[in-house]
Amino acid sequence: MSKLLDNVVNDLSRLPGVGRRTALRLAMHILKMERPDVESLTDSISAFRTRICRCAQCNNLSDNEVCDICLDHMRDRSTLCVVEQVSDLLSIEKTHQYNGLYCVLGGVISPMQGIAPSDLRIDLLLDRIALGEVKEVIIAISASVEGETTLFYLMNSLRRFPHVKITTIARGIGFGDELEYVDEHTITQALMNRREVADRQ
Amino acid sequence: MSKLLDNVVNDLSRLPGVGRRTALRLAMHILKMERPDVESLTDSISAFRTRICRCAQCNNLSDNEVCDICLDHMRDRSTLCVVEQVSDLLSIEKTHQYNGLYCVLGGVISPMQGIAPSDLRIDLLLDRIALGEVKEVIIAISASVEGETTLFYLMNSLRRFPHVKITTIARGIGFGDELEYVDEHTITQALMNRREVADRQ
Repeated sequence: MSKLLDNVVNDLSRLPGVGRRTALRLAMHILKMERPDVESLTDSISAFRTRICRCAQCNNLSDNEVCDICLDHMRDRSTLCVVEQVSDLLSIEKTHQYNGLYCVLGGVISPMQGIAPSDLRIDLLLDRIALGEVKEVIIAISASVEGETTLFYLMNSLRRFPHVKITTIARGIGFGDELEYVDEHTITQALMNRREVADRQ
Repeated sequence: MSKLLDNVVNDLSRLPGVGRRTALRLAMHILKMERPDVESLTDSISAFRTRICRCAQCNNLSDNEVCDICLDHMRDRSTLCVVEQVSDLLSIEKTHQYNGLYCVLGGVISPMQGIAPSDLRIDLLLDRIALGEVKEVIIAISASVEGETTLFYLMNSLRRFPHVKITTIARGIGFGDELEYVDEHTITQALMNRREVADRQ
């Protein structure tokens, strides 16, 4: 087998979810791509890996020291949303419904995976709250055992800011989900948090 | 969203089978990779795209003008296997059961996709047979309508070499396939090509 092909297949198959067969298919596609497009791909991978930073204020991925969201003066500085990772932040941004700031923890507390509270950017959260502008902290982390542990830890850390309201995102049945396939815990939460239908006449 | 992240997600999501969500997951993985590993990935993609050639004798992918298989003097030069594409050649090589040479057509005749016989490297096949060493041509192309058309065209082109034996790979039930789920055409072929059990006592 060609050494060049072998190398590209080996390197591509190290990516998550890419087996050797997929890597070969990708290589064959790369062969058909225009050279400038391949250059654009490799350049953007290199640039991303070497030049991306973490925002010094919220730990979001950023091209500069402080990210666009933190710099944006149109955003509401009194609300702070705590998420596990950048992809969660991007999911919330996609809704265009949230106009506050973020704090990207970088994970959840997990003794099994050796992630201690000190590995998370809880310091950024506390620093920002200490500035005095924050009125509400929305905790939007997963409802796993690790997530609950992290929530508990955060609640404890935030105890010294009694004037700050702390909320968590609602648990319930997603749009399009069928009750039949939803787990009991979610259904229980959805029942407990039921709302009165507003528009009754 | 960070421009660097946006670029890498855009470029990755142009690859086949990679949506924006997968592209984002890949980007996050690239972020966690060691820098030399990312360099190795981008370098091997660039090198593959810019330096890979087609073997002048069989149209296989090759680092040099003639591929390792064609150069290998341990291989049987009297047998030639005709395949559609490089991935088919690699699948056959993986069996370690074939020791002859190849001819990679580069596709099959398909009026629908605008692939004419002149787009395929049938010339390489005929050139090699004209050298006089080839005794058997094994045609290992897919059993689709296009494949059958191509087979018919090849049979016609090879008519001027009456001393060369032409075979096609056997059609039948694959190992592990259940009859219940195999199409009628394959079952018909498998029945027609039935073999007597050799080891009867």
